[in-house]
Amino acid sequence: MTQPYLFHLGEVKNEAGTLNFWEPNQFPFEVKRVFWITGVPEGEVRGIHAHKTDDQVTVCIQGSVKVRLEGLDGSIETFTLDASGMGLFLPRLVWSEFHFSANSVLLVFSTNLYDEDDYIRDKNYFDKLKNGHSEEL
Amino acid sequence: MTQPYLFHLGEVKNEAGTLNFWEPNQFPFEVKRVFWITGVPEGEVRGIHAHKTDDQVTVCIQGSVKVRLEGLDGSIETFTLDASGMGLFLPRLVWSEFHFSANSVLLVFSTNLYDEDDYIRDKNYFDKLKNGHSEEL
Repeated sequence: MTQPYLFHLGEVKNEAGTLNFWEPNQFPFEVKRVFWITGVPEGEVRGIHAHKTDDQVTVCIQGSVKVRLEGLDGSIETFTLDASGMGLFLPRLVWSEFHFSANSVLLVFSTNLYDEDDYIRDKNYFDKLKNGHSEEL
Repeated sequence: MTQPYLFHLGEVKNEAGTLNFWEPNQFPFEVKRVFWITGVPEGEVRGIHAHKTDDQVTVCIQGSVKVRLEGLDGSIETFTLDASGMGLFLPRLVWSEFHFSANSVLLVFSTNLYDEDDYIRDKNYFDKLKNGHSEEL
């Protein structure tokens, strides 16, 4: 299974600010959807789910967000996203939780268009998959 | 010539924050490049140029940015971008200036990959184009 990993995005930085970018050769997949999350209260937790087939890249472009990930093998990883040029590749079938600090902005690139059927929002269901019941997907 | 205009992006808003999104049917063009600008000092002016062939959509997803646009017909328009769900369609051959307030974040979707040859950075050259010397493009 593909593992989550951090990587550097393109960056042009000077005294007038920082520009980071995505171009098609930057990610291991085609981008079908881009979304951004703003106005999240300090301490709020979002993105509590896994995806069946969607792979994503997540960038915290302002503030900081702590990400807790749990794989189907039961492994736990945590990442702190706090740099506008740092991408987190988040593959399908990983349970995520995004803990927001104040005034943070999250930018997400997805392989799929929005499809509610692609979300696994029930942790008990995810835990069953961890135990090998993947025929239920 | 196509004119600049504001439009609403997709938005899902509740007490946990606001999610805005782009999907391919949202814009009048294919997105080849996404970039985001952060860490800009209060009062800084960026994006002082026009493009020869690139069309863009600009979103201020945090803070506020005042945009001054000048068309080839000499018309001046100003827009204040201060909502994460408000897009500004900025067509080619429009001279732009983006005036940043503190802690503002700008997200830009482009039709083209980065190409320095597509930029018009010389205002005198742009003014010549305004006066009908478009054969120089």
